[in-house]
Formats: sequence, structure tokens, C-alpha cells
Amino acid sequence: MLNWLLGKPIPDDRADSEHIGPATGVAVLGLDALSSAAYGPEAALTLLIPLGAAGLAYSLPITGVIAGVLALVFLSYRQTIHAYPDGGGSYTVAKENLGNRAALVAGAALALDYILNVAVGISAGVGALVSIFPDLIAHRLLLCLVILVLLTIANLRGVRESGVAFMLPTWAFVISLFGILALGAWRTWTSGGHPLAVESPPPLPLAVAPVSVWIVVRAFASGCTALTGVEAVSNGVPIFRKPTIANANRTLTAIVGVLLILLVGIAFLCRAYGIAATDPDGAGYRSVLSMLIAAIVGRGPIYFTAMAAVVTVLALSANTSFADFPRLCRALAEDRYLPDAFAVRGRRLVFTQGILLLALLAALLLVAFKGITDNLIPLFAVGAFLAFTVSQIGMVKHGRRENPVARLPIVLNALGALATGLTLLVVVVSKFTEGAWMTVLILPLMVLGFSRVNQHYLDVAAQVAWNAPLTVVPGRRPAVLIAAQSWNKMTLRAVQFALRLSDDVTIVQVRAQSAKMRDMTADWQQLVADPVRAAGLPEIKLQVLTSNYRQFFTPLVAHVLAWRNTNPDRDIVVVLPDLVVKRWYQGVLHNHRGAILRTLLRLRGGPNVVIVNTPFYLE
Amino acid sequence: MLNWLLGKPIPDDRADSEHIGPATGVAVLGLDALSSAAYGPEAALTLLIPLGAAGLAYSLPITGVIAGVLALVFLSYRQTIHAYPDGGGSYTVAKENLGNRAALVAGAALALDYILNVAVGISAGVGALVSIFPDLIAHRLLLCLVILVLLTIANLRGVRESGVAFMLPTWAFVISLFGILALGAWRTWTSGGHPLAVESPPPLPLAVAPVSVWIVVRAFASGCTALTGVEAVSNGVPIFRKPTIANANRTLTAIVGVLLILLVGIAFLCRAYGIAATDPDGAGYRSVLSMLIAAIVGRGPIYFTAMAAVVTVLALSANTSFADFPRLCRALAEDRYLPDAFAVRGRRLVFTQGILLLALLAALLLVAFKGITDNLIPLFAVGAFLAFTVSQIGMVKHGRRENPVARLPIVLNALGALATGLTLLVVVVSKFTEGAWMTVLILPLMVLGFSRVNQHYLDVAAQVAWNAPLTVVPGRRPAVLIAAQSWNKMTLRAVQFALRLSDDVTIVQVRAQSAKMRDMTADWQQLVADPVRAAGLPEIKLQVLTSNYRQFFTPLVAHVLAWRNTNPDRDIVVVLPDLVVKRWYQGVLHNHRGAILRTLLRLRGGPNVVIVNTPFYLE
Repeated sequence: MLNWLLGKPIPDDRADSEHIGPATGVAVLGLDALSSAAYGPEAALTLLIPLGAAGLAYSLPITGVIAGVLALVFLSYRQTIHAYPDGGGSYTVAKENLGNRAALVAGAALALDYILNVAVGISAGVGALVSIFPDLIAHRLLLCLVILVLLTIANLRGVRESGVAFMLPTWAFVISLFGILALGAWRTWTSGGHPLAVESPPPLPLAVAPVSVWIVVRAFASGCTALTGVEAVSNGVPIFRKPTIANANRTLTAIVGVLLILLVGIAFLCRAYGIAATDPDGAGYRSVLSMLIAAIVGRGPIYFTAMAAVVTVLALSANTSFADFPRLCRALAEDRYLPDAFAVRGRRLVFTQGILLLALLAALLLVAFKGITDNLIPLFAVGAFLAFTVSQIGMVKHGRRENPVARLPIVLNALGALATGLTLLVVVVSKFTEGAWMTVLILPLMVLGFSRVNQHYLDVAAQVAWNAPLTVVPGRRPAVLIAAQSWNKMTLRAVQFALRLSDDVTIVQVRAQSAKMRDMTADWQQLVADPVRAAGLPEIKLQVLTSNYRQFFTPLVAHVLAWRNTNPDRDIVVVLPDLVVKRWYQGVLHNHRGAILRTLLRLRGGPNVVIVNTPFYLE
Repeated sequence: MLNWLLGKPIPDDRADSEHIGPATGVAVLGLDALSSAAYGPEAALTLLIPLGAAGLAYSLPITGVIAGVLALVFLSYRQTIHAYPDGGGSYTVAKENLGNRAALVAGAALALDYILNVAVGISAGVGALVSIFPDLIAHRLLLCLVILVLLTIANLRGVRESGVAFMLPTWAFVISLFGILALGAWRTWTSGGHPLAVESPPPLPLAVAPVSVWIVVRAFASGCTALTGVEAVSNGVPIFRKPTIANANRTLTAIVGVLLILLVGIAFLCRAYGIAATDPDGAGYRSVLSMLIAAIVGRGPIYFTAMAAVVTVLALSANTSFADFPRLCRALAEDRYLPDAFAVRGRRLVFTQGILLLALLAALLLVAFKGITDNLIPLFAVGAFLAFTVSQIGMVKHGRRENPVARLPIVLNALGALATGLTLLVVVVSKFTEGAWMTVLILPLMVLGFSRVNQHYLDVAAQVAWNAPLTVVPGRRPAVLIAAQSWNKMTLRAVQFALRLSDDVTIVQVRAQSAKMRDMTADWQQLVADPVRAAGLPEIKLQVLTSNYRQFFTPLVAHVLAWRNTNPDRDIVVVLPDLVVKRWYQGVLHNHRGAILRTLLRLRGGPNVVIVNTPFYLE
């Protein structure tokens, strides 16, 4: 069953076969970045609506600046991949160059980003889908969760399989948009800059506000969401096959190249075709990309194919998080900021716990927001640009330390840090009331959480540490207390086990005053005392406890603790026979005293008390 | 916290203080029967609607027959209380006189009845409440569940407390209805049989069907729901204080007396005031009781007080089930048809498990039916009349065996069995498509379930039984395998414990090929081997297992099982150090290998393998 769902386990020595090349890499790590092209330009244009036709004039320069920042970020991450081929991206760069505190900030920002990306990506994809098929609106949340489960399973099957599965929609997206943009560019050129739209876009909105720096700056901040996801490759370098660094760099170049062409192409053609954003809350809303494609090729099969690819890539952009979040968790776990389990590879060599945690958190977000997560988009950009900035400052320090003669990389990184830092500031200020305040609240809490986990582990390690040789403390064999309710095969087996273990065995019977339970004293001589004496073994004691409140555990635990207090140096083994049923559902027909007693004694028993269940198997 | 919510525990020797007299008894065991007066007459009249004014003429004779059956049932249960003062009612009577199979049928019918009664009673009370305050309609299910939780808590606090809590609404119900009916009877008498209504009821419906036997029979079957709940006292005899039988009989007489007066009074006055039922699905629907009270006293404060009492008693009628269902479960558990836990009294001397199971099942019904359980009402009557019939047949046999000279009781029981048996037949046939078919399906399944549980327990008892004295099997001390990942205080403690336990100790280290775990072989000589030799103890062995699939448990369990197979006669103790955290939430930061390994070895280890967790307490 598990083999069928998740695939057969992969041994450690076949790890290489799970590594991927640039073509698959784009599908695994690039969908987050590429899908940004579908909403980044739109986000910028939406804020320019009040400027009317004048707004369109500003979209090209704004895109130019965004493209410039993208280029700087690209150059910086190329160096990061080279310098830190073990992955971990911004977190590792910050840790190595800026210290743990900065690393935790970058790690928290990235982690939050990845979680949001899953929820927002899936919800955007489903949103586009239900706007095509309005019958599905009632099942919005269900659709989101189904896609989430499918993504989770695909990723649990391993990196390579998820990459192969997502390759087709990725290529459909890139090829169809490239073809359409090329056609649009050709028509624009042949028409002298004024192409005729196959389907006319709505008329440009009327200007209702004068051009102001604030509006342009806010449009820039919104457009910057187009850069999210560019850090993904640097976090996931180890998933590439050899030559690892070269393959990772090729993948990053391909992703950024495609993204640049899409951003510039869309901005340029929107201007040529006179397409402005429509009010997203209005009745006549249509996405910019949809209007642009319809203007260039009309509403034919090509339009629907391209739009289908856009919707799919949007929904699958969550996959980038599934590739990177578990790796980030692993890096945090190896530095003991998260539980160890996140550092353990599962049956298919992926970090199972990280994938499951990501799925769970994203599911909670989707459920909490009923599948509509638009309001979370601003939080996104903050996380991404915080990670960009920290990473590039780290690379500046790295450059000055490792290769101070080469000035160009240092300057580029410093420029990049400045650009992304300024962008971060703009995003936080302009989007503060729209949700960025949440990031300002959540990130310190996450950093605090990581620190507390780390503190706990260091504390445990200090308490557990023991480098000296074994100290042999001579002592008597442990005392054995057998909890038994009547004389039967289970009690018999417990006594036989106890006799091999120790020369100091006591049977404890707990009798409720009101119950019809037989007192074991009656037959004790004949059933136990005589045979033990005959075998020449030390006497077995019997202790009958009476319970006035129909309880079993309270008197038994009190007895064990009293015994321990009067014998502080002895080890005490409490034996409780355990009936093992054949079918799981038969379990409800029996009490689970072993498990309950274990929990109670674990909490209160102290280091010298252990409990043993002697199993009795039913046929 | 628990003390505050449920009250302090009551010791066994104060059990008498929890016993009750007839006044409380009516509130604890009578609400189910009394509340029937609110819907039984209405159910009969509803089926007479198609007959128009002629229908009203039939309602008195139908009520007469119902009252006759009620009287027979009453006489039979008086004898039952006398013959079986330990309670258990129909189940016990059937078991003692008709055998186990009949007893299980009666037990299943009663259990189903009690569960349905909780869901239907609460949902009917809430239904009446929301028809007064329509704003609450949206919170219908929530209200039902809140009442259910309150009832559950009241009953967990003990029989006496729940009785005292429900006494006030019971008396309000009886006194207000008696007063109103008396006033109506007086006015009828003084007006020569034609009293003037204070608020005129709606005009009588027009006849749309001729009088037919089938309609009258169906009306009778529906009206018989007024008898449900009469068996309650006989099931709960032991909750009365001494003289137990006399007190139980007084309670039963009071309940049946009140019920008879209400049934006959309502039927008589409905005819005098010319009140017929209204279509329950129609817009102008009003309950018969509401119209009758309004006709006698008008819509003033008395009307609202009486209606409030009716609504409350309806909602609290579920309480009868809470008193009896756990006692029925206890009787079934003592005969080993249900898990033992149902026979154990909780902190307040009530049968906690039965109360919780009843609450859970009723909650499931309420949730499944979204708080509207009208469709379940037919199932009810089937269960009740099946129990009546079985019980009375049993009492016939009982009378013929115990006191064959006294003919009257035998004849009365036989007549009663005939009457309730015929009624059962009428109910099943006339209500088959309305839901009675479900009972026909569910009851055999319940009986089968009880039998299977019994079979399992008998099977276990036979396998576990051992009446012979202890057989002492000489053997070596157990072999100890310590699972350790590194040398630290936890491993140290496990080794020290093992050395006192046995002379045959092995440490097993599981290393994943890919993990950065230190091989313990390196320091073995210095850390363990040398000190052991110096202390003159037998050598401790080290075994390093390598895992190719990053697993911990699979190689360890395989090793233990292989060890067991080569040493089939040895006891094997697997020791796994256990880190005990101080706060529960720290638990998520550590693996739970002890619990997982225990589960795996319990399933596959066989009788000779036990597992010990040596606890290490963090500070």
C-alpha cells in the first residue's frame, strides 16, 4: 500500500539517481519564480489604474527598475551557489558571514515565505479555475486541499518524480507565452508600434488622480512580487546531479532569463496594445495576462491553452516550497533549531517530516482563510526581500574575506543589498496596513521559537553528556512488584519471568471494596508458596491493597512510591501482564492498564522505577 | 478542576447517601414517560386529520385502549420490580425466564431506545424553543449539544444531584398541566359539555377521507408512543433508598398515575373544546397542547409558564436514559456482553463509561441529523414495545414457576404480553416505511455484536485460565540488549541497570550509512570494556548495525528477532533509555522511540521479549 502510494524505499547508495539536471530543475525549483510573471505586472498595473492612460506610460520604467533589481539578485545568487554548494541559501550565507541571529532572521523569513507560497499559489490556481467554471465555487476549499494532498504525495515520492510530473505544464507555460509575446512583438514592429488587437481590450480608465511619487513607489513595491522565488535554486543546490554547481547555475540562469523576458515583454506589449489593469473587485474584472493574450491571438484554442498553462503553473508554484522548505528545516535541525526528525531522510530520500509539516501548515492556512488567501500576498514579498537583503549583505562580507582583490562581486552584492534593502523598506511601509505588519509580528516570534528550541537541546545535551568511562555501582538485583488481579496464566508467566530476574518478588493485588474479586490470600499457600519452597527459591510475598474509591492506579502507584521511598537505592521493576489481542479492534474490549500505569510511573516514579509488560498472546 | 466540575469522589461506604426516594425518583426516571403526554396524543390526532370532525370522535376510544394497555404494562412492571429488585428490567426478566437470546433482544431494544430517547428528547425540546425564538434556528445543533453536555455533567455528578436539579421543572410541568386540565374540566362540566374557548382554536379540518380501520389502527400505533419510558423504573430499582421495592413502586405508580390523567384529560378536553391536530408541515402549525392550553387559559402568563415547563421536561426527558442506559450496560458487562469498564462505578458511584458512551452516541445522532431527529421517533416505539412484550412473556413464565397457584398475575401478564405484542405488530407494520425498518435491521446486528463480544471474552478466559499451582521453570537470567546511539549518561544508566539484572549484556548501536553518527567501537575499550573487566564482571558485548535505508527500527527489530530465534528458551529484555521532559510541550522536540519500539516488539516479539525504558529525568 505504502509502496504503491509513495514508491519503494531508495537505499542511501542510490542517492545519485535521485539527482536532477537543469530541465527538471526548472520544474522543481522554478515554478514559484515563473508564476510570478502572471501576477507581478498585474499587481503594479492595478495600482496605476487611478492615473488612467498616464499610468501605462509609467509601467515600462517601473518594470525596468524591477528588472534591474532582478539582475542584481541573479548575479548575487550565482555567487552564492558557487560559494555554498551545500544549499541552504540565505540561511547558510547569513550563518557563515553574519552570525546566528541574522541566520535565524533569514531562516524565519524564508520559512514563512515557503508556507505562504503553498497556500497562496494553490488558492490562486483554484481561484482562476473557479472563475472559468463557476459551478465549482462551492468546492473551492475542497479543491485547494485535493491539490495540496496531490502535491504532498508527489513530493513524498521523491524529487525526481515530482520534477518529471511538473515538466509538461512548465514547458507549456514557457512555450505558449514566448510564442504569443513574439507574435505580439512582431505585429507591433510591423505596425509601427500600433498593432491592431484581435480582441479589443476595454477602454483605458479615466485618470482620477494626479501622478505622484507615492503612487509610483507603491506600484513598484507591488510589482516586486514578481521577484519572489528567485532564491529557490540557491537553497536547493544539492538536488542537482554533477557537475552540481554548473547545473544549479544553468537552472538559475534559465529561470531568471525566462522571467526577465516575460516581465519586459508583458510590460512592453501592454503599452503597445493599450492594456491597463481592471478593478479586481469590479464586475468586469479580467486579468491583464488574459486581456493581453486575447488581444494578440483572440479567444481561440491558443488562448485557452495558454490560460490553462498559466492556471496550472500557478497552482503548482507551491511545488518550489515543497522542494526547499524541507531542506531549510533540515539545515535548521542540523544546527538544532528544530527537532532532529527534520534532518532524517525518509524512504525516498526526501525529508519527509518537513514535507508533512509544510502540508499541514498550508492546510491550516487554507482552512482558516476558506481557500481565499489574497490577503496574504503582501506578507510574501516582505519575506522574500528580507531574505534577499540578508543574503547579499552576507555575500559582501564573504567577498571581502575570501577574495578582497576582486572588487566587482563585492560592489555588485553591495549594490544588490542596497537595492533589495530599499525595496524591502518600500514594501514594508507601503504595504504595512495591508498585511506587512503581520510579518513584523510573526518573524520575531519565529526567531524566538528557534532560539528556545536550540536552548532546550543545548540544555539536554549538557545534562546528558558523559565522557568518562563506565562507573560500575555494585548493588542488589532489582526488587520486582507484580500487579495481578487473579491467579491465571498471565500471572503465572509474570511470576516465572520475575523469578529469573530477581530473588525479591512481591505480588500486589488491588481489590475494590465493592467488587466481586477473589482475595488471592485464600489459595496463596497451595498455589504459590508451596511450589516456591519446594523449588528452594526465596519466598514470594503477597500484598492485597484495598481501594475505597473503586480505583486501581491510585493505590498501586502509592504503594510503588512508598516502596521506592523506603528502598531508595534499589532498582524496582513493576511487572504488569499484558494481553495482546489478535485483531486491533479487539483492543476496545480490554483495559489498557499497562499503558496507563507506565505513564503514571514515568511521571512520578523517578529514575529507579521501570515497568515491564510481560506479553500474553491470544490465539 | 475535576472536583469542581464533577464533585468530590464518593467512597464505597457512603453509597447509601446517593440513594433517592420517590419524589426525586419521578424527576430521575419519570421524565421520559411524562413527556410522552406532550407528543403521544398529538401523534394520534395528527393521523386523524383526514377524517375531519369525525376524527375527534375516535380520539377518546383510541385513548381508552392506550390507557388500558398502559394499565396492563403498569401491573406487569409492579410485579417485575418485586421479583427483580436488582434492576435490569426487561433484560433481567428475559435472561432469568426466557434465556440469553431473548435477553439480548430485550437488551438491544432497550439500549437503542435509550440512545434514541436522548437525541429525540433534546431535539424536540430545542425544536419547541426555536419555534418560540426563531433567531435561534441557526444555532439549533449547538443548543442540542450544549444541553447534552449539561445533562452529561449533571449525571456524572451522581444520581441524587441530577434528580434534585430536575425536580423543579418536573413539578412545574405536573402542577401547571393538572391545574389547567382541572380548570378545563370544571368549565366543561358547568357549561354542559360545551365550554367557551378563551382563545378559539382553528376550525376543525374538513374530512377528506372516509373512516377506515387502517386509519384508526395507525392512529393507535402513533398514540402508543405515549407509553415509552414506563419501563424506566424497573430498570433502575437499585437507585432507590430503603425500602427499595416500596419506593420504586411508589415512583412507578406516581408516574403512571400522572401520565394516565394527562392522556385521558387531554383527549377528553380536546374533544370538548373541538381541537384537532394541525398539519405539522403546514405554515399554520401549532401543537395540540399549545392550542388546548390557550383555549382554556388564554395566551397569558399561565400559558407561557406551562409551555416553558413542557419544553423543559421534553428536553430533560433524555435524563431517564442517562439513569438507565449505564445500568443496562452494567448488566450486559457483568454478563460479559460488553467490556468490563461498563461495570465499574466512577468517582461519584455512577457508571461513568455508560454515561459517556450514551452521550457520544446521542451526539453522533444529533450531528448526523443536524439537530432534527423527528424521523427517528417511529424507531422508538418499536424498541419500547419489543421490551414490554419480552418482559411480560418472561413474567408469565416467572409466575408459573414461582407461584402457579396465584392465577391473576399470570393472566394479567399474559393479557399484557398479548396487548403489547399486538401493538408492536401494528407499530412495525404501520410504521415500517417511516423508519421501523431500521430497527428491524439494527437490532439483529446489536444482538450479533453482543454475542461476538461474549464469545471473545469466553475465549480469552479459557485461554488465560490456570488453576494449577505455580510451575517453577529453572532458567538463566534474561539476556539484555541495550539500544544506544552514543555514550552518554542515559546509556550509562541503562548499562548500570542491565548489569544488576543479568550477566549477559549487549549494547546494540544502529548507524545510518549516511548519518554523521560516531561509531561506538572506537572508544569501547576505554569507556566500557576496561572498567567492566576491572570490576570483575562478565564482558559486555558491542554490536554495531548499519542501516542502508536510514531506518532505526527495522534493523533493531530484525536483530532482536534473530537473537530470539537462536535463543528460544531465554527471556530477552530490550533496554531503551527514555528521556523524560519536564513540560509536556517539550515532548515534540524528542523522538518517541521507546513507544514505537514497544509497539513493534509487542506485535512481533513473542512471549519471551519484553522492553524496559530506563527513565532519565531532565531538570
